[in-house]
Amino acid sequence: MKRPLITLTTDFGLADHFVAAMKGVILGIAPQARIVDISHQIEPFAIAQAAFTLDQAARCFPPRSIHVAVVDPGVGSARRPLLVEAGGQYFIAPDNGLLTMIYARTQPRVRVISAQRYFRHPVSRTFHGRDIFAPVAAHLAIGTAPARFGKVISDYIRGKFEHPAQAGPARWRASILAVDRFGNLITNLPAADFAFLAHSRFRLKAGGRVVQRWVESYSEGAPGELLLIAGSSGYLEIATRQASAARLCGCAAGDSIELRCTGAGGAKTAVALTRTTAGRE
Amino acid sequence: MKRPLITLTTDFGLADHFVAAMKGVILGIAPQARIVDISHQIEPFAIAQAAFTLDQAARCFPPRSIHVAVVDPGVGSARRPLLVEAGGQYFIAPDNGLLTMIYARTQPRVRVISAQRYFRHPVSRTFHGRDIFAPVAAHLAIGTAPARFGKVISDYIRGKFEHPAQAGPARWRASILAVDRFGNLITNLPAADFAFLAHSRFRLKAGGRVVQRWVESYSEGAPGELLLIAGSSGYLEIATRQASAARLCGCAAGDSIELRCTGAGGAKTAVALTRTTAGRE
Amino acid sequence: MKRPLITLTTDFGLADHFVAAMKGVILGIAPQARIVDISHQIEPFAIAQAAFTLDQAARCFPPRSIHVAVVDPGVGSARRPLLVEAGGQYFIAPDNGLLTMIYARTQPRVRVISAQRYFRHPVSRTFHGRDIFAPVAAHLAIGTAPARFGKVISDYIRGKFEHPAQAGPARWRASILAVDRFGNLITNLPAADFAFLAHSRFRLKAGGRVVQRWVESYSEGAPGELLLIAGSSGYLEIATRQASAARLCGCAAGDSIELRCTGAGGAKTAVALTRTTAGRE
Repeated sequence: MKRPLITLTTDFGLADHFVAAMKGVILGIAPQARIVDISHQIEPFAIAQAAFTLDQAARCFPPRSIHVAVVDPGVGSARRPLLVEAGGQYFIAPDNGLLTMIYARTQPRVRVISAQRYFRHPVSRTFHGRDIFAPVAAHLAIGTAPARFGKVISDYIRGKFEHPAQAGPARWRASILAVDRFGNLITNLPAADFAFLAHSRFRLKAGGRVVQRWVESYSEGAPGELLLIAGSSGYLEIATRQASAARLCGCAAGDSIELRCTGAGGAKTAVALTRTTAGRE
Repeated sequence: MKRPLITLTTDFGLADHFVAAMKGVILGIAPQARIVDISHQIEPFAIAQAAFTLDQAARCFPPRSIHVAVVDPGVGSARRPLLVEAGGQYFIAPDNGLLTMIYARTQPRVRVISAQRYFRHPVSRTFHGRDIFAPVAAHLAIGTAPARFGKVISDYIRGKFEHPAQAGPARWRASILAVDRFGNLITNLPAADFAFLAHSRFRLKAGGRVVQRWVESYSEGAPGELLLIAGSSGYLEIATRQASAARLCGCAAGDSIELRCTGAGGAKTAVALTRTTAGRE
Repeated sequence: MKRPLITLTTDFGLADHFVAAMKGVILGIAPQARIVDISHQIEPFAIAQAAFTLDQAARCFPPRSIHVAVVDPGVGSARRPLLVEAGGQYFIAPDNGLLTMIYARTQPRVRVISAQRYFRHPVSRTFHGRDIFAPVAAHLAIGTAPARFGKVISDYIRGKFEHPAQAGPARWRASILAVDRFGNLITNLPAADFAFLAHSRFRLKAGGRVVQRWVESYSEGAPGELLLIAGSSGYLEIATRQASAARLCGCAAGDSIELRCTGAGGAKTAVALTRTTAGRE
């Protein structure tokens, strides 16, 4: 790679030295690397939000990009660091479900990083971002072959937050993956699977509120009205025109929501959908 | 352009994947581009604050820089995307007043972006930053001529927040453009036009408070005293030494303020000033 | 320097145009420069926090990196701008103690920046980051020799926050340097000097609470238990497993804490320690 591209996703925030320390380590080893921040404001230890954010951004990056993600409640314990080749890109992250969305849309080759010669020494117990993940990414960027970092495994961890669970005929138990800057609630209902809601009656319970209206654009909504929209993320989103749906509903990332399809086509579609989601796993 | 420079100004915040998605799209098309963030913490939909912030930063960038600004309450509706050549630089933004300050100090050539071949497809209804503005900037960066993106227009939108309104002899109705990190209130009173206040008596009403003292440096003020200072922005700023003037006054961006010049030279200067500001439009 | 590396540490926040203005100025003078943000969210005017953050990050950067730091309560007054060569890197900062940690671990050569030909003119009274520090860094990056910026001095300012004070046999008065994103309290107790606490009984008073347990990893702690740990920073840190120690203790950066060593080896170690810290100054 002539000018390798390395992205960073963490829950380190931007106030402390943590992110810059990782960048310094990377640029010391791989001076030609370009580094792009995805987010450092993942809520502390919020793995589902990190998995969603990383996946959304990674889809926009060119082949051979190296994505480093460190949201790591288990730092200092026995959880394994991983190097994953997936969809023509590389992912370096702890083995805690952070790559769930990536696994779901690719045929990943997953390795445990064990070659300590690529670490920064002495390895601290609390800052593996600087001492393990950053230097491994940099060594990969300067051309070290993936196989040199460790062996392929198959027992890596997948989260369960990636898709909704069918709870009856035309009923689903779903969840909020993330709340964006504008207060839009991003659900884990894939827009492709639930596009039929545009032509069906439905009730989506989120917090104390019910969403019943499908729109194509935010500007169709009346002020204060809750809307369901096929967001840019590929998932259905609960939104309100120029206001925060999260505040209206009292919802946060991780909350459960409940969808019931009350239109004529509901039950029939549900059958088809079950088949589709089963096929994806 | 050998190593084109692209800046980004948005109200997307830094927690979500939005900004990184734009960067990934840009670097996929224009791998040599250098990307600099101006701000992603514009208050949601705050066009005057965005216009001020972009203008302040753009003045410091070299010729041929490409500035992308996405603060866009109308995303998904009929508002037009623009490509503007102004002051030797390029600006890519929705047509909603965001470039008001740029228009005021240059002879802009304004185009409507219509060439869909430069978009990222499918174009979402809610994320034109990723699907229109970022790829257009990247194609411009790799050498596509401005004329290929669309036709020149003259009916583009200018905001009214860029300068104060005369409200009588030696009286002006002005407003707060922005509140900075330190709580300084940046007014829309151009320092060059109102430099005479340094040698005149005046009363500037902001929130519940009155500012009456002109200083050359923050350190001249007493603790808790409100000060008027010719800030680094080229506008007059209301400040307090090592404290937040915004908190003292109870003022926020967008608020109206009122200036009355009570010194001997007030009325005379006001006449000259009216001529000057008329000439600028 | 072929592709010089410039880092930025400020209390400017990320919402305003300040940081981007500095970057624009740098890239106008030194187009090949790579710019890395260390932090722009230092608490306004918090010099000890800035000194700690810069030092932690700088240790991870390669030789010849140029570190620009602007946390500057005295902007517009008589404080001097400095250019420091230390530890194989460069530091550009106001003379207000911001480089205290750097001075403590290197043999610095400190210059007062006086060569106005490298400034951006007209120099504003309130934004020396843009008008002095950024252009000086850029001129240094393109090869201007340090000696051209100004003369070597020895009466530069050192802060007193860099190490604890002995308050009696086996007693120290220390302080909180910084609170990180996770609520960990970073003390100014150097881990190397106080490693003996791992094998000794001790009481560390912080806010209304007492810390008595030393651990090697966060995951050893019980929920809600306060822990002392040799953090990745090289200082002892007060932490709680997956929660905020700062909230538990009611502590903030700058607060005093008190350490008493009650184990058998306490007094003896204290003597050795006094010798060590004296030697470092």
